[in-house]
Amino acid sequence: MRDMIKAGVVGATGYAGAELCRLLTGHPGAELAAVSSVSFEGKALWEVYPSYYQVCGPVCGTQEQVVEQCDVVFAALPHGLSQELAAECARKGRVFIDLGADFRLESEEEYQEWYGGGFLDRELHQRAVYGLPELFREKIRGQRLIANPGCYTTAVPLALYPALEAGLIEKDGIVADCKSGVTGAGRKMTQNTHYPELNEAFTAYKVAAHRHTPEMEQTLSKAAGAPVRLTFVPHLLPVNRGILATCYARVRPGVTLEQLEETYRERYGGEYFIRLLPKGRVADIKNVWYSNFCDISLHLDKRTSTFIAISAIDNMVKGAAGQAVQNMNLAFGLEETAGLKLFPPAF
Amino acid sequence: MRDMIKAGVVGATGYAGAELCRLLTGHPGAELAAVSSVSFEGKALWEVYPSYYQVCGPVCGTQEQVVEQCDVVFAALPHGLSQELAAECARKGRVFIDLGADFRLESEEEYQEWYGGGFLDRELHQRAVYGLPELFREKIRGQRLIANPGCYTTAVPLALYPALEAGLIEKDGIVADCKSGVTGAGRKMTQNTHYPELNEAFTAYKVAAHRHTPEMEQTLSKAAGAPVRLTFVPHLLPVNRGILATCYARVRPGVTLEQLEETYRERYGGEYFIRLLPKGRVADIKNVWYSNFCDISLHLDKRTSTFIAISAIDNMVKGAAGQAVQNMNLAFGLEETAGLKLFPPAF
Amino acid sequence: MRDMIKAGVVGATGYAGAELCRLLTGHPGAELAAVSSVSFEGKALWEVYPSYYQVCGPVCGTQEQVVEQCDVVFAALPHGLSQELAAECARKGRVFIDLGADFRLESEEEYQEWYGGGFLDRELHQRAVYGLPELFREKIRGQRLIANPGCYTTAVPLALYPALEAGLIEKDGIVADCKSGVTGAGRKMTQNTHYPELNEAFTAYKVAAHRHTPEMEQTLSKAAGAPVRLTFVPHLLPVNRGILATCYARVRPGVTLEQLEETYRERYGGEYFIRLLPKGRVADIKNVWYSNFCDISLHLDKRTSTFIAISAIDNMVKGAAGQAVQNMNLAFGLEETAGLKLFPPAF
Amino acid sequence: MRDMIKAGVVGATGYAGAELCRLLTGHPGAELAAVSSVSFEGKALWEVYPSYYQVCGPVCGTQEQVVEQCDVVFAALPHGLSQELAAECARKGRVFIDLGADFRLESEEEYQEWYGGGFLDRELHQRAVYGLPELFREKIRGQRLIANPGCYTTAVPLALYPALEAGLIEKDGIVADCKSGVTGAGRKMTQNTHYPELNEAFTAYKVAAHRHTPEMEQTLSKAAGAPVRLTFVPHLLPVNRGILATCYARVRPGVTLEQLEETYRERYGGEYFIRLLPKGRVADIKNVWYSNFCDISLHLDKRTSTFIAISAIDNMVKGAAGQAVQNMNLAFGLEETAGLKLFPPAF
Repeated sequence: MRDMIKAGVVGATGYAGAELCRLLTGHPGAELAAVSSVSFEGKALWEVYPSYYQVCGPVCGTQEQVVEQCDVVFAALPHGLSQELAAECARKGRVFIDLGADFRLESEEEYQEWYGGGFLDRELHQRAVYGLPELFREKIRGQRLIANPGCYTTAVPLALYPALEAGLIEKDGIVADCKSGVTGAGRKMTQNTHYPELNEAFTAYKVAAHRHTPEMEQTLSKAAGAPVRLTFVPHLLPVNRGILATCYARVRPGVTLEQLEETYRERYGGEYFIRLLPKGRVADIKNVWYSNFCDISLHLDKRTSTFIAISAIDNMVKGAAGQAVQNMNLAFGLEETAGLKLFPPAF
Repeated sequence: MRDMIKAGVVGATGYAGAELCRLLTGHPGAELAAVSSVSFEGKALWEVYPSYYQVCGPVCGTQEQVVEQCDVVFAALPHGLSQELAAECARKGRVFIDLGADFRLESEEEYQEWYGGGFLDRELHQRAVYGLPELFREKIRGQRLIANPGCYTTAVPLALYPALEAGLIEKDGIVADCKSGVTGAGRKMTQNTHYPELNEAFTAYKVAAHRHTPEMEQTLSKAAGAPVRLTFVPHLLPVNRGILATCYARVRPGVTLEQLEETYRERYGGEYFIRLLPKGRVADIKNVWYSNFCDISLHLDKRTSTFIAISAIDNMVKGAAGQAVQNMNLAFGLEETAGLKLFPPAF
Repeated sequence: MRDMIKAGVVGATGYAGAELCRLLTGHPGAELAAVSSVSFEGKALWEVYPSYYQVCGPVCGTQEQVVEQCDVVFAALPHGLSQELAAECARKGRVFIDLGADFRLESEEEYQEWYGGGFLDRELHQRAVYGLPELFREKIRGQRLIANPGCYTTAVPLALYPALEAGLIEKDGIVADCKSGVTGAGRKMTQNTHYPELNEAFTAYKVAAHRHTPEMEQTLSKAAGAPVRLTFVPHLLPVNRGILATCYARVRPGVTLEQLEETYRERYGGEYFIRLLPKGRVADIKNVWYSNFCDISLHLDKRTSTFIAISAIDNMVKGAAGQAVQNMNLAFGLEETAGLKLFPPAF
Repeated sequence: MRDMIKAGVVGATGYAGAELCRLLTGHPGAELAAVSSVSFEGKALWEVYPSYYQVCGPVCGTQEQVVEQCDVVFAALPHGLSQELAAECARKGRVFIDLGADFRLESEEEYQEWYGGGFLDRELHQRAVYGLPELFREKIRGQRLIANPGCYTTAVPLALYPALEAGLIEKDGIVADCKSGVTGAGRKMTQNTHYPELNEAFTAYKVAAHRHTPEMEQTLSKAAGAPVRLTFVPHLLPVNRGILATCYARVRPGVTLEQLEETYRERYGGEYFIRLLPKGRVADIKNVWYSNFCDISLHLDKRTSTFIAISAIDNMVKGAAGQAVQNMNLAFGLEETAGLKLFPPAF
């Protein structure tokens, strides 16, 4: 029997970090060996998240301790803070999985435009792989520096990739109207996530100006084999978890819903974490709660020749911590679903 | 001082009917003279809605009694049930305001296609006016048979009309991605509006197949002066009230956001119930709660030349009962805002 | 016709202050003449609460300006900050209505024990009246310094007063198990009112240690004509508005539910804002939303001889701003219900 | 290696039944061998609960099939329907675990008073054991007819048992003020669980008249060694899952909080599923979500000598399906925590 992988989480008291700790605690091939938090150093994780009491015990240490004690380091940090940590992990021979944005964009120019900083070490960036297993699995296996996609950038590309790749839809005029649960905004308090101000509310934010836009375009351009630009409008749902992406694209002349369905079945047929819904069903965030599934339903508006692909994920699992574990599994040659056969509750 | 208008509500115990009773109770120029309900005949309205206890007293009678006792009859009935009632009101000289769909579509063919029935009396249909005052005010004044638009069909056309009318956007490729609060589905219980099944859930329904589609197209075609088809996908929000319509259209070459803003300001500048939001603000359902306002924010995605107009209404007020009162005011020559200066609470 | 009362709100951008601005805007005998806010000086109220856009216009000034320009000054401030302002208002001849706790307790000793400060000016405190109109109306009329009760301290005494006053229940062993909506915690962000942490959560807080305890006891002791102590446990509900107080007391031997009902009917029969519910109904926060009503239902557990009185108020209206307006009406000799005939919506 | 236990669920499409199917699917020593549903016979479980798609596959058959094919039969049926099924299981040699109320009360008289029916087979009732493992573990081991307690009747007795057993509180005057999530009301639609009517609402129901009262008293009387009566008022929370029980009792003279804490620590120290919270923490339903934990916090109101014990459970897990699995584990001699080491998510 192989040894348990020692896994560590830097930024463990943020939402993505805490979710990672939960998933790693239940993982059959890994153990949560060390966690760190700048804000809560010296405190046990359960003091921040009382639901973890007597279940998940580690005391928050420093980032250095995590790197020292672990085989794989997950970073759930604000953007800009991962690059030095990644370099340190590379020096120490640790696998590094970044839940932030620092290594997701291939183009330094785009990174500068949307995030405002440069690449500290270009050679390191070139070693980074983009961790969306259902699309880029073979590139991820055995790698040691993995950029874990964000929530929108998982939901939208999974919804559109096969249609673009097969040339069934037009490359221009794509719209991604997305709705996210509040955990996507993180643990940090803001006035618009203060309970009475968000409850019973619903609005869009960063309209056509969200940083995830170029990351989606990067993935979709690979599908199309040519540059793709899309209009992306995120909205904030008054629910805890989930992203629903309603994606619109014009179909190429003569394309039928059956062709689209067949294309998706072929592309995703063997994917454990993608559930193509039967006809008549529509993807719903509630059906993927607390799971690593991405549910997808396909629709065609014949009156306007518009393809509508709707995907649903749990933003904290498939959109963050679960996908990170999936990438760890690929990096270490474990069963890809290890620790991730999570059953979404019905209510 | 003129006499109070005697107003009656047929179908008073449904949500739209109950909201009408609430608004009419506070109206300075009308009184709630009679209400009817098939399900609750003989019961007081507060027995169905205990919040009305000691505030809104009428006992539910029959439809016939309402017609007999009132100057204006509001009907909040399932589609198909208004046509005979409208004819009866015409015979008795009552003003009839229909919150249902029976008189909204001008084309009998489309009515048959989407609703499955025909027009009982074509002459009557020709007398009906479409009650969206901000767009068709002059046609509504003094009329006696008014088809009150539904919720989506208020929010979407108000968001797009000025841009189409001024030729600033393309007529094809329009997408209306709409999100509605649950009261839009009415008081009737269904499994998917059972609390534990909708709470924390979010999905689309009737994808590109909702009956409101031709009604929106009818209005937008008037704006464009040519047939407009749009892709309409409604979603169900786990909140009580509100519709947010996120509308997408390609701008004509060279059109700027400033042009669009100026066009909307000119078109809607004098409208009490339309609030064009200042730059940087996005329409939010919570800001129009319990009011007859329609908030609109305008956005332009320069990267893809896509115009994004976002409108928010309270589906029960501007999307149903409030607009019906507004139409009554126009029909009877009252101040258009009478009984409708409702202040949306902040929380 | 008398002049409009010039009303001003100090602390207008907190929740209670903002709600006061909303109610005063609709008041037939008063106008919102000036508002102040330390955090948002120079900003219009709608910039903080966008639902007020084009409806409630004032720009936040200073406390001094409010005192200068108004006949009545409402203070919605953290405790400890009202005493000097009250003194200033007294000097300037302004009516002062305090929504904070500084003038609520008659005993300086208790104030020191629970709030940690003393009375700056005892003579001023002696002039203060406790503004719970349904219990102390005659003492409030025409007064110029009114301590407006808090939310729990309105809901619990209204539920128990008549039974204690009539000697139908025991003075000891009273339990008030209360549940409050989140607006009661104010606009200030805290981790436990961050949306994802409160949503779907429910717990008690300050168990048997809440500062409102001595204030309730002060009122109930007047009812009993002897010292009353009670056990008070507040809970935080994941809803915006409303307090439900479930109050338990042992009935005196032989007391029947009919006697209790009769006693309440006599005590509260003429009260517009108290709705004694018919048999079989239970008070529900949703039925008093956005209104100044206090709904009360009475129950008797014969098996254990326990009286259960359940009251529901909107914590922001009857529990804060609405009651403050009611006190203003009494202070100025207006109709007590002026500006407060608010119809609670059904949904 | 022992064979997997074949488990079957009768009434699998109700909420408790569906939750059982979820838990059994993840159980290391049992397999979900058959399920039945009267309403959905012939349909797959995922058609009713789409979150189960590709995860939990069985097609609903008949009750007879379940009895035929399984070693243990769980019944999640409305009361009155379990007695014949229990008899059939006894004849066929199946272990029977009843999530309904038919076998919970020892006194036929009380059953008749509160449920309106009699015991069909008294001998069978005498063989039934009451399945609250933390209190009656030794009586449950190896048994074949187990009455699984309901949600309130788990939360309240666990909160009060040690204090009563040790004689630290008075037997009379106990109040259990309980708040339940909506899943406790089941999948069946009712007007008051229609989303718009429950959302933002909060009220009590069946005030001092709920059927769970005698069941709690039965358990607490065992603790006290004498008849105990309590006042029980349940409330409905607008959340999906969870029960918070706030329990009040007078302490015996001189009893301190330290004594109470020590008594609970001794009684529950070895219990995996009971988490006695550290000082300063209060039980919260959100911390036990989707887990089999019962969190308990202890408080003393010294001013009134009132003991306050607050317990929180997930009504669907520890209050229904999870406890049923715990009982199965005891009945079959498995590790008691098998399949139940469920980690409550933080959000």
